[in-house]
Amino acid sequence: MTSHQDRANEPESYVVGIDFGTLSGRAVVVRVRDGEELGTAVHAYPHAVIEDRLPGTGRRLPPDWALQHPEDWRAVLRTAVPAALAAAGVDPAAVIGVATDFTACTVLPTLADGTPLAELPAWAGRPHAWPKLWKHHAAQGQADRINALAHARGEKWIHRYGGKISAEWQYAKALQVLEEDAEVYAACERWIEAADWIVWQLTGTESRNTCTAGYKGIFQDGGYPSEEYLAALHPGFADFARTRLEHPAGLAPLGSRAGSLTAEAAAWTGLPAGIAVAAGNVDAHVAAPAAQAVDNGKLLAIMGTSTCHVVNGPAPADVPGICGVVDGGIAEGAWGYEAGQSAVGDIFAWWLRQGLPADYLAEAEATGEDAHHLLTRKAAAQPVGAHGLVALDWMNGNRSTLVDHHLSGVIAGLTLATRPEDVYRALLEATAFGARTIVEALEDGGVPVDEFVVTGGLKKNALLMQIHADVLRRPVSLAVSEQGPALGSAIHAAVAAGAHPDVRTAAAAMGRVRRHAYLPDPARADAYDALYAEYRLLHAHFGTGNDLLLHRLRAIRNAALGHAAPSHHSED
Amino acid sequence: MTSHQDRANEPESYVVGIDFGTLSGRAVVVRVRDGEELGTAVHAYPHAVIEDRLPGTGRRLPPDWALQHPEDWRAVLRTAVPAALAAAGVDPAAVIGVATDFTACTVLPTLADGTPLAELPAWAGRPHAWPKLWKHHAAQGQADRINALAHARGEKWIHRYGGKISAEWQYAKALQVLEEDAEVYAACERWIEAADWIVWQLTGTESRNTCTAGYKGIFQDGGYPSEEYLAALHPGFADFARTRLEHPAGLAPLGSRAGSLTAEAAAWTGLPAGIAVAAGNVDAHVAAPAAQAVDNGKLLAIMGTSTCHVVNGPAPADVPGICGVVDGGIAEGAWGYEAGQSAVGDIFAWWLRQGLPADYLAEAEATGEDAHHLLTRKAAAQPVGAHGLVALDWMNGNRSTLVDHHLSGVIAGLTLATRPEDVYRALLEATAFGARTIVEALEDGGVPVDEFVVTGGLKKNALLMQIHADVLRRPVSLAVSEQGPALGSAIHAAVAAGAHPDVRTAAAAMGRVRRHAYLPDPARADAYDALYAEYRLLHAHFGTGNDLLLHRLRAIRNAALGHAAPSHHSED
Repeated sequence: MTSHQDRANEPESYVVGIDFGTLSGRAVVVRVRDGEELGTAVHAYPHAVIEDRLPGTGRRLPPDWALQHPEDWRAVLRTAVPAALAAAGVDPAAVIGVATDFTACTVLPTLADGTPLAELPAWAGRPHAWPKLWKHHAAQGQADRINALAHARGEKWIHRYGGKISAEWQYAKALQVLEEDAEVYAACERWIEAADWIVWQLTGTESRNTCTAGYKGIFQDGGYPSEEYLAALHPGFADFARTRLEHPAGLAPLGSRAGSLTAEAAAWTGLPAGIAVAAGNVDAHVAAPAAQAVDNGKLLAIMGTSTCHVVNGPAPADVPGICGVVDGGIAEGAWGYEAGQSAVGDIFAWWLRQGLPADYLAEAEATGEDAHHLLTRKAAAQPVGAHGLVALDWMNGNRSTLVDHHLSGVIAGLTLATRPEDVYRALLEATAFGARTIVEALEDGGVPVDEFVVTGGLKKNALLMQIHADVLRRPVSLAVSEQGPALGSAIHAAVAAGAHPDVRTAAAAMGRVRRHAYLPDPARADAYDALYAEYRLLHAHFGTGNDLLLHRLRAIRNAALGHAAPSHHSED
Repeated sequence: MTSHQDRANEPESYVVGIDFGTLSGRAVVVRVRDGEELGTAVHAYPHAVIEDRLPGTGRRLPPDWALQHPEDWRAVLRTAVPAALAAAGVDPAAVIGVATDFTACTVLPTLADGTPLAELPAWAGRPHAWPKLWKHHAAQGQADRINALAHARGEKWIHRYGGKISAEWQYAKALQVLEEDAEVYAACERWIEAADWIVWQLTGTESRNTCTAGYKGIFQDGGYPSEEYLAALHPGFADFARTRLEHPAGLAPLGSRAGSLTAEAAAWTGLPAGIAVAAGNVDAHVAAPAAQAVDNGKLLAIMGTSTCHVVNGPAPADVPGICGVVDGGIAEGAWGYEAGQSAVGDIFAWWLRQGLPADYLAEAEATGEDAHHLLTRKAAAQPVGAHGLVALDWMNGNRSTLVDHHLSGVIAGLTLATRPEDVYRALLEATAFGARTIVEALEDGGVPVDEFVVTGGLKKNALLMQIHADVLRRPVSLAVSEQGPALGSAIHAAVAAGAHPDVRTAAAAMGRVRRHAYLPDPARADAYDALYAEYRLLHAHFGTGNDLLLHRLRAIRNAALGHAAPSHHSED
């Protein structure tokens, strides 16, 4: 290996990481030697999340749909990358690699050459031709059948996914297309994760990465689910994996070089043609090395609008309700476990969208605080349990451990004295209780979790972090970088370019963490045990069993809105 | 009887009704002949509801306490009555009677001469010396023991109260005084409903009315609970009814003349000394004749911050969870049933206190609507069930049919798409579901309810009224008067003064109702049946059985606030 002394005499080299989030894409220019972030730029997607009406047609979408526009993603390459380079003041010629990460499972139908069906005039008016964002939650019926059949047939892969394949993933979403718009399904030649599609845009050649294939594509032990299984779901679905997922080159491991930057992509980005492009990756998983959370037992929580949890373990274990366990799914040489909460920051934002009292608004104006800060300050002073509330954090369904997107939120204990900050704090706590449920499921399954490492926007909320330390009775560490996934992508770019031998080595050189930034307070932790016990009772009552009131409320809602059976024929 | 023709030649005579509400007192001057309301005035209580700190001392009150100041009530006599007379332009000499009604059970300890302990310097610093407002909910422990003992001893009166004596009533509140501040209890020579205390202020002599004695004082079949029963609750409580409730004159029927206006009260009010003062009455019960809701089967709902329901039936029946059934409790010659919801309008106001989004506030400013009107308009358009929510209307506990003030509210079905008007509508519906629960309990017990007559401020909310018609599948009629209790008191004043022979006759002449103002829509009623079924499941899960999560949340809250065992020794 090259020593630090030697390196000081070499010319510096740089990598670019690009993180495609739910509402925007961010590029960061990073120094290969030490991970220093030299420049960054963000491009907000003009179409954001498409939930109400299809662009161009005004056609109304059914409830629970969530789409995105592929051109919004390309625009990040054309705008954010050059802007980040300019901000960094780095000579583009010194950039040796680029890597991307994406929300997942965000997935789209394309032609064999990668052209999105949504961009073809023949298909642009059909909702099912569009990329389905991770939080598209309208394929629960398909997911239910996928799971029932897998258990009935004794498919061994189902246990790698906590016993449940999510409605968010590749199969449920594809099956929904087939069943609701067979013509779109027939025109779909490739069904591809946006994580791989964006790499295709950069390299000009299709590749499929280990991470999304494993976590979202049911690739386990060398293969996809069998044609017999798929045919039993729907006769027309038998060849789905063979024709629309499989690729002759196999899967590209994380940090490997998927290809070289094309001249076209070089022109978009301002980067040198021919540099290394890393295999696609997922925003959550890619962030682990950026926070030095690659060792077994260090659970990384990427806390933003929703939360993903990734943690490495030494062996495959069946953990009920976990999103998945994939060999090398986070880094080569370990089994990567993924879990998630479908909404976290989104829940706090939802509460603030209900408004604030006039005197609170006046106070915020006087102090210059934003609404989150105001409610956090008001909520922080109260003793644990003083608001008398407990909430279920299911306003966007439950990813782990129930894997049920037709659940919804519950708040219990409301009185005429309940104030906005009381509900706000109860919602913060509910998300911590949701995290504890996941941590306990992992440990019960034999996957140790001894540290809770946080990255993402919510790490700045000190009250939320302390609540997590208290509720989890574990130290909470904070990633130093403000852009964990983008830095994680940059780390993978450095590995793909050969500047570091592997992701673990690169993480040690380029990642940063503030270890044990919050420690649990024993008295508060005891008090939270009592509230968590009530949360678990609500969790069991509303989340399990055969009498799912929240499912019926959703069915009543959908029937009232005239969307009992959404299909491509439904109109406003 | 005097004919209308004859009366036209007589000089007109007038009566004054005074309604003591939760936040203010209202006087109305009414023409005896036809019930025409000629003038009215309101006086807001300066101390309103005392919930946080004891006046004068700043001493902090425990959770669930609610007190009032007797001087606030006297001030209504001195200000609102003269103002109403002036507004009416009526010669005070033509006023032949006055009657009052009050919230109940609002109850206070006094000396033998009626002086409130709270107004004596020796006792003013002691919370238990103060009048306890109806919604003082800190005596649930006492109520639980009152009920358990009554059932254990087979006291037959317990079945006249749906099997449960409320924590709001005379016995639980008095026992709380004895057990938490025995010195105040010892100094209390009379324990008297504010409804009777205010009559004492007008007449100079104590009287006790049939209505509060029956509904709040457990006076059944000619007597109060036995000394043996009371002694078994607490040895010091044995003589409670004999020494602090009983009066040599017995009980005064509703509409009877309790006495004559004293010179002092004449000076306060501007009314002639010596005119008839009617027996005390309760705001809910007194309103029935004002809405011509005295016939069996016509349920009167007095809908405001909370709702009281009163309905006459032909015979005594045991209705579980009902507040009480009293012979002549609403009018002579029928058995009067009372039920109630501890909060209704208070729940809607609570939701608005959480605030409104900035764009809603701007819209309200542009249209000139108040916040209630804005949310009602936004909520009115949606189909039944479209919000996907169901709520339990227990933000102030549950009076009927659970008689449990340690319950609290629940909202289920929340999603990230839930808007303020969705929650608002769900809360309106929850109160209608609560009303349906009461109506079904009455009918199941053999008390027919064929019409829902509404008086009180909420009758102006057309959406709320239509929801009640649809949920109850019954016609909703509206009292015409904007001040049903005050008009009802005026009707009783006319009877007490001898101008009408009885309350029924006076109601026919002086009451007004808009019959069947809202009719149920069969399709919406069907849709509500499905939501009501879910409400009933939540009702059973959270309201009954041995696993009362909401009770534990309240206990956790009280412990966190340091008020696990409120007593007169507790300090902030």
